[in-house]
Amino acid sequence: MKHFLTILLALLSHGIVSAQNTTIMIRISEIEIDPNYLEEYKAILQKESQASVRLEPGVISIYPMYQKDNPTQVRILEIYATREAYESHLKTPHFLTYKTTTLKMVKSLKLIDMEAIDPGNMPTIFRKLQDK
Amino acid sequence: MKHFLTILLALLSHGIVSAQNTTIMIRISEIEIDPNYLEEYKAILQKESQASVRLEPGVISIYPMYQKDNPTQVRILEIYATREAYESHLKTPHFLTYKTTTLKMVKSLKLIDMEAIDPGNMPTIFRKLQDK
Repeated sequence: MKHFLTILLALLSHGIVSAQNTTIMIRISEIEIDPNYLEEYKAILQKESQASVRLEPGVISIYPMYQKDNPTQVRILEIYATREAYESHLKTPHFLTYKTTTLKMVKSLKLIDMEAIDPGNMPTIFRKLQDK
Repeated sequence: MKHFLTILLALLSHGIVSAQNTTIMIRISEIEIDPNYLEEYKAILQKESQASVRLEPGVISIYPMYQKDNPTQVRILEIYATREAYESHLKTPHFLTYKTTTLKMVKSLKLIDMEAIDPGNMPTIFRKLQDK
């Protein structure tokens, strides 16, 4: 038992084991929008993504884009600090407003979970954006 | 002519017209990898994306991911400060090494040009990554 505690403490101090699940969650949402609602949809999504990033510390990125050659094809890069941060995001008023008001505008939705190929490099990769 | 210059100067001062093309270029590359080469491919891509972000001021992000449920499906979010930065990226030794060594590993490749739905919000969105 003493050995077990010693090992556990050593692992904890090296951040290998932690009380909370701190694995980053990455997703690309692939969304097709009814062309009749495209501008309205984009305005609502913009508001929602801004609120999420501003109000939720666990939302690292909600970065919405659309395909230049096919503007009804929306893609969102979503990065959450933990799965818990994502679960709590789903319960926020701004997400619920987005979800209910855009339901009729969405023709199809695929949520694709991703892994970063170089997780350690993420901060470096995005650092320059801050200087823009 | 005097009116034209006045208007041009007004536009320049508001950043609506600029001497250089400063439009950010955003792309999602969709790449399918031969499963026999997957680990090798990911290692080469990781090296290339790190070098690009480190060595090229115009490379804002080359952020490679793969689908959790289908790991041979690679997606790369690429953000360049200008189209010129992208053209110059294609001529760098690290990109050319990546391109030639991975040619046989790539089963299909789609380059999809994107527009940000909220361009002004990009710095805010990615800011938190720096603190990770």
